[in-house]
Amino acid sequence: MGAERQLSHAEVLGRYAGAFVDALVARGLRDVCLCPGSRSTPLALTFARHPRVKIWTHLDERSCAYFALGMAKVHGSAAPVAILCSSGTAAVNFAPAVVEAAQSHVPLLVLTADRPQELRDLGANQTIDQVRLYGSAAKWFVEMPLPEASEEMLRYVHMVGWRAIETTWAMPQGPVHLNFPFREPLVPAAVEPVFKDSRAEGFVGPINKEEHRFAPDVTAHRRGVIVCGPGMMEPTGSLLELAARLGWPVLADPLSNLRSSPHCNDNVIAGYDSFLRSAALADELAPDFVLRFGAPVTGRPLSSYLQRHRGVRHIVIAEPGLFPDPDLSSTGVIEAYPPTVCDILLERDDLPNADPGWLAAWRRAELKTREVVERILNESEVATEPSVITDLAEVLPDAFNIFAGNSMPVRDIDSFWPATKQVLSFYGNRGASGIDGVVSTALGAAAHYGRTVLVIGDLSFYHDMNGLLAVKRHGISATIVLVNNDGGGIFSFLSQNSEDEEHFETLFGTPHGLDFTPVAQLYGVGFQTVATRQEYKAALRASFDAPGVQIIEVKTDRAENLKLHQRIWREVAAAAVAPEVAK
Amino acid sequence: MGAERQLSHAEVLGRYAGAFVDALVARGLRDVCLCPGSRSTPLALTFARHPRVKIWTHLDERSCAYFALGMAKVHGSAAPVAILCSSGTAAVNFAPAVVEAAQSHVPLLVLTADRPQELRDLGANQTIDQVRLYGSAAKWFVEMPLPEASEEMLRYVHMVGWRAIETTWAMPQGPVHLNFPFREPLVPAAVEPVFKDSRAEGFVGPINKEEHRFAPDVTAHRRGVIVCGPGMMEPTGSLLELAARLGWPVLADPLSNLRSSPHCNDNVIAGYDSFLRSAALADELAPDFVLRFGAPVTGRPLSSYLQRHRGVRHIVIAEPGLFPDPDLSSTGVIEAYPPTVCDILLERDDLPNADPGWLAAWRRAELKTREVVERILNESEVATEPSVITDLAEVLPDAFNIFAGNSMPVRDIDSFWPATKQVLSFYGNRGASGIDGVVSTALGAAAHYGRTVLVIGDLSFYHDMNGLLAVKRHGISATIVLVNNDGGGIFSFLSQNSEDEEHFETLFGTPHGLDFTPVAQLYGVGFQTVATRQEYKAALRASFDAPGVQIIEVKTDRAENLKLHQRIWREVAAAAVAPEVAK
Repeated sequence: MGAERQLSHAEVLGRYAGAFVDALVARGLRDVCLCPGSRSTPLALTFARHPRVKIWTHLDERSCAYFALGMAKVHGSAAPVAILCSSGTAAVNFAPAVVEAAQSHVPLLVLTADRPQELRDLGANQTIDQVRLYGSAAKWFVEMPLPEASEEMLRYVHMVGWRAIETTWAMPQGPVHLNFPFREPLVPAAVEPVFKDSRAEGFVGPINKEEHRFAPDVTAHRRGVIVCGPGMMEPTGSLLELAARLGWPVLADPLSNLRSSPHCNDNVIAGYDSFLRSAALADELAPDFVLRFGAPVTGRPLSSYLQRHRGVRHIVIAEPGLFPDPDLSSTGVIEAYPPTVCDILLERDDLPNADPGWLAAWRRAELKTREVVERILNESEVATEPSVITDLAEVLPDAFNIFAGNSMPVRDIDSFWPATKQVLSFYGNRGASGIDGVVSTALGAAAHYGRTVLVIGDLSFYHDMNGLLAVKRHGISATIVLVNNDGGGIFSFLSQNSEDEEHFETLFGTPHGLDFTPVAQLYGVGFQTVATRQEYKAALRASFDAPGVQIIEVKTDRAENLKLHQRIWREVAAAAVAPEVAK
Repeated sequence: MGAERQLSHAEVLGRYAGAFVDALVARGLRDVCLCPGSRSTPLALTFARHPRVKIWTHLDERSCAYFALGMAKVHGSAAPVAILCSSGTAAVNFAPAVVEAAQSHVPLLVLTADRPQELRDLGANQTIDQVRLYGSAAKWFVEMPLPEASEEMLRYVHMVGWRAIETTWAMPQGPVHLNFPFREPLVPAAVEPVFKDSRAEGFVGPINKEEHRFAPDVTAHRRGVIVCGPGMMEPTGSLLELAARLGWPVLADPLSNLRSSPHCNDNVIAGYDSFLRSAALADELAPDFVLRFGAPVTGRPLSSYLQRHRGVRHIVIAEPGLFPDPDLSSTGVIEAYPPTVCDILLERDDLPNADPGWLAAWRRAELKTREVVERILNESEVATEPSVITDLAEVLPDAFNIFAGNSMPVRDIDSFWPATKQVLSFYGNRGASGIDGVVSTALGAAAHYGRTVLVIGDLSFYHDMNGLLAVKRHGISATIVLVNNDGGGIFSFLSQNSEDEEHFETLFGTPHGLDFTPVAQLYGVGFQTVATRQEYKAALRASFDAPGVQIIEVKTDRAENLKLHQRIWREVAAAAVAPEVAK
C-alpha cells in the first residue's frame, strides 16, 4: 500500500471503493441489486468489475429493494444481498422494503450514495437529508467518510464493509444502512485488491461450548499476547489458567480486574504502560498472535503496540453488538463471554507448548519496570502523582473497591498499580470518559457497600463537588484521594504544551486557584491535605475505618509531574530492553 | 380487577403506577434515586409507599443520575437501579450519566415524567420535547400512555416495567428510558397490588444447553399447547418430536414451515383458524400451559384463543431483543433458538406422560374441520378463494416455495392449507405486512431458485405491477396466482362493511375495474384467467414447468366470498364441538 506518488482522484476512488467491496465479497456477497444513477457510480462500477459479483439492475427503487428482500429471505445468512441507489428520493423509495426487512428480520445491506457535505442543505439538485434516513429501521447506520486512500481509511472502510454484513446477520437480523458521500468526477479507476481479503477472515456471532471455530487460530501460535481491557472478565480463573498453559503474557488493564485477584499469576503484566513506550522493546516483544478481551484498553502505549503489530492475527472477544477495535487492528471479532472462550480452549488437547523465552522476556521487562519505578519514587519522601498510586496499592486492605477518576488518575493507575493476589475491584466511568459526575458515581458505588476509594483530580472533583451532598443525606462512607495540581494536568502531556506555550495555561492548564478546605464544613466530610508519603499513608489507613467520607488532598505541581513521568519512562526504557532476547 | 364502579382519577393513577412499580419490584428493584419534582409525583409516591423500595433523594439531577450509575455499576445485573425526575431540564440533566451508562454498558432504568400531550409544544411551563430525549444512548425508549386502569392498560404497563428491566440487562447492557405523561392532579391513591407479581415471573436472556431454568414449567403440565408463529423454527425435527413425547398439539402458522415438512406428524394442527372461532371449542380446548415460538401468529382466532386463556403459564421463545407478545398473554420470554429449547427438553427424564384425551380432542377438531371444508368446497366446480388454496396444496410438487401475499391470501393459507409431509417453504412479508412490494419480493425470492408460487390479491398485484419488469431483465421463473375480487376483499370481513354500507364501497371496497390481460404483453409474461377448479389445477400444473412467469387469474366476488367463509366457519363450529371431551 505504498503511497510513493500522489494518487489521482480516480485512483483514490478506486482504492476506497475497492477496499470496501473486497470486504463484502470476502464475507460472501455475490448479489447486488441496483438502480441506475450517477452519484452511486463509484460503487456500481466497482461491483460490476468484480468477477464474483452478479448485478441485478432494476428501474424502480421500490421494486429493486423488495426484489432484493425476496432474495435475502431465501438466502438467510447463507449469503448477503446488497442494494445500491443514487441520492435523493431514490433512497427514500428503498424505505418500504427496509422497514419490512427490519420487522421481518431479514439481513439486507442498504447502500445509498449522497452528495458531499458541502452540497447539502443548500438547495443542490437531488439532495435530501439521508443521515439516518430509515430511522430505527436500520440496525446500524454509518455516515461514511469522503473517499481517501490512506492506509487508515482503507482499513476503516474495509472493516465497515465486513462489520456491516456481520451486523445484518446478528440476531435479530435486519438491514444496515451505509450512506456514501461522493464528489465528482465519479468514475473510479480499476485497481488491484488492497487487502487480499486478509482483514475479512473474522466473524461475529454468538458461540457456544460446542463451537471451536476460532480455536485453531490460538493453537497455531506460540508467541501470543492476551490483552484485557475494562470489563467482562470475571470469573478470572480460567483466563489466567489459559495464559499459564500457553505461556502467554496477560496485559491487564486495571479495570479488567485481572491485576488484583486470588488467581493472579506470573503471566499478569502490569507495567506495560511504562515499558511499551520504548519502541525497541515494543519491537523486541513482537507477538505472532493477539487474543483480546473486553473494551479498548485505556493507555496509548498498549494501543500503539497493537497498531505496530497489525500484521498478526488478532481476535477480539466482545459482547454482542460491540466492536471494540478503535485501532483497526483486529482480524476477527467473536461475540462471547471471555470465561466461556477460555474454557473452550482449556478443553483442547492441541494447545501449543509454552515457549519459556517468550514469557521470560515479558517478565524481565515487568520486573525491571517495577525496580525503576520503586527506585525513582523512593528518592523522595514528598508525595507525587505516581506515589499516590503505589502507596495506595501498598496500604489498601482486601475487598476494597477502587474508583478511578478520569484523565490522569486512571492512567496513573494503569501505569503504576502492580499485579497482586489481593481481592480488589476497579471501577471507572470509561464509557464516555467524562470528568463530570465522577464524585456522584463513586458515592453511588459506595452507597450500599462502603469500602471504596476514589482517586480523582481537582478539575473533576470541582465539576461534581455538589454531588457530595449525598454523603450526609445517605450516610455514605468512602475515601476520596484528591490529586490537586490546580488545573488540567493531563494536558501537560500533550504537544499543545510545548508548541504554543503562550496560550497553553489559559486554554489547557486552566488553573482555578480554589482552596477546597471549606468543602469539609459545607458538606460535612473529613478533609486533610498531606504532603509526604508517610502522612498520605497514615491518612489513608485512618480513613478506611472512619465513618463518612474522608477527603485526602495531595497537592502536586503539573510541570514537576510531567518531568517525573518522563524520567520514569526514560529510565524504564533504558533498563528494560534486553538485547539478548531472541526475536 | 373488577371495574364495577367508576374509579377516581387518583385510583386510576394509583393502579397504573402500582401495576408498573409492582413489575419492577418483582424483577428485583430495590433502589430508586430521585430528585424532588411535582410531575413525577405518581411514581415517586408509589415507590415511596412500597415497603421493599429504598428511596435515595438528591437535589441535583446530574449528581442523582451519576450516583445511581455508581450503584448500578456495583450491582451489575444482580439488582436493577432506577432514576426518576420531573419534566423539563431535570430530564436533560440526566443525559451525561445516561450516555456514560450506554457507553460503559451499565444497566440503568431512566424514568422521566412529562406533561400530557395537550400541553406540549405550546409554550407550557417546564415543557420540553422528551420523546427520545437521549437519542441512541437509550437502548429502548417508550413514550408511555396516559394513565388508565383498564385491564389491558395495567397488563401493558406491568409488561413494560418487566421488559424494561430485562432490556437493561440484555447484552450489551445499558439504559432504558420510559417517559410518562401525567395529568394533574398528581397524587395517586394507595392501592392494593394489581397482579401479585404473576406477570413478572418470566425472564429474558440467552440460554445455553446447560440451562434448564424454564424446563420445570413445561414438565409440570399435561395439557399444553405449542404455538408456532412465522420464522425461526428450522430444523423442525426436534420440535415435532417434543410435541409427540408430550402429546401436545402444535398450532403451526404456515410461515413457521412446520405444516409441510418430512417430520410432520399428528400433533400438527392446521385447521385451528377455522375451529377456534367457536367459543365453545376454544373453551373446551382450554390449555394449562402455552409454549410459543417465533413471531406473533397471523390469524385473529388463534390470538383470541391465547387471550382467552391468559391465566395460564405462557412462555415465549424468541430472538434476542424481540418481545413477540402483542396479546400481552405471556408470563415469560426466553431468548433462544427453538431447536435448542426443544433439545434441552428432550434430554430431560421428567417429561410428563402424554394425556391421550388431550391430543385426541384437538385431532377430532382438526379432522372435522377438514371434512367440513372439503364437503363444502366440493359442492362447486367453480374456483373460490378457499379452493384456490386447497387445490394449490393438492397439485404442488415437492421442494417449492410458496410466497403468501398479504391481506387475504396469507389468511386463507392459514385457514385452508393442510398439514402434510411435503417439503415446502413458505415466505411472506409479515414484518410490516404491507401490500406494496409483494410482486418484487416474490420475484427476488425466485431469482436464483425458481420453483416459486406467489398467491396475491388484485390490489397488492396492481400496487407493485411494475416490479414485473424484472421478469424479462433477469429471466425469472415463477407462478403467480392472482386472486382478483376487484378491490379490497379483506375489508368485507370488517364491521365497517355492515355498519356503514353507504360509504363502504368507496372507502374500503375500492374497486379499480382493471382488466389485467394487457400485463402479459407489457411485461412478457404468461397470463390466463380460469373459472373452474379443473382449469385452475391444469393451469398450475402447466406453469410449474414453463419458463418465465405465468400469471393465473381467478376472479371472485367479494360478497360471495364473505358468505362462503362464514358458512364454513359456522358448519365447522357445529361439527367440531365434542361435548364428550372431558374438560
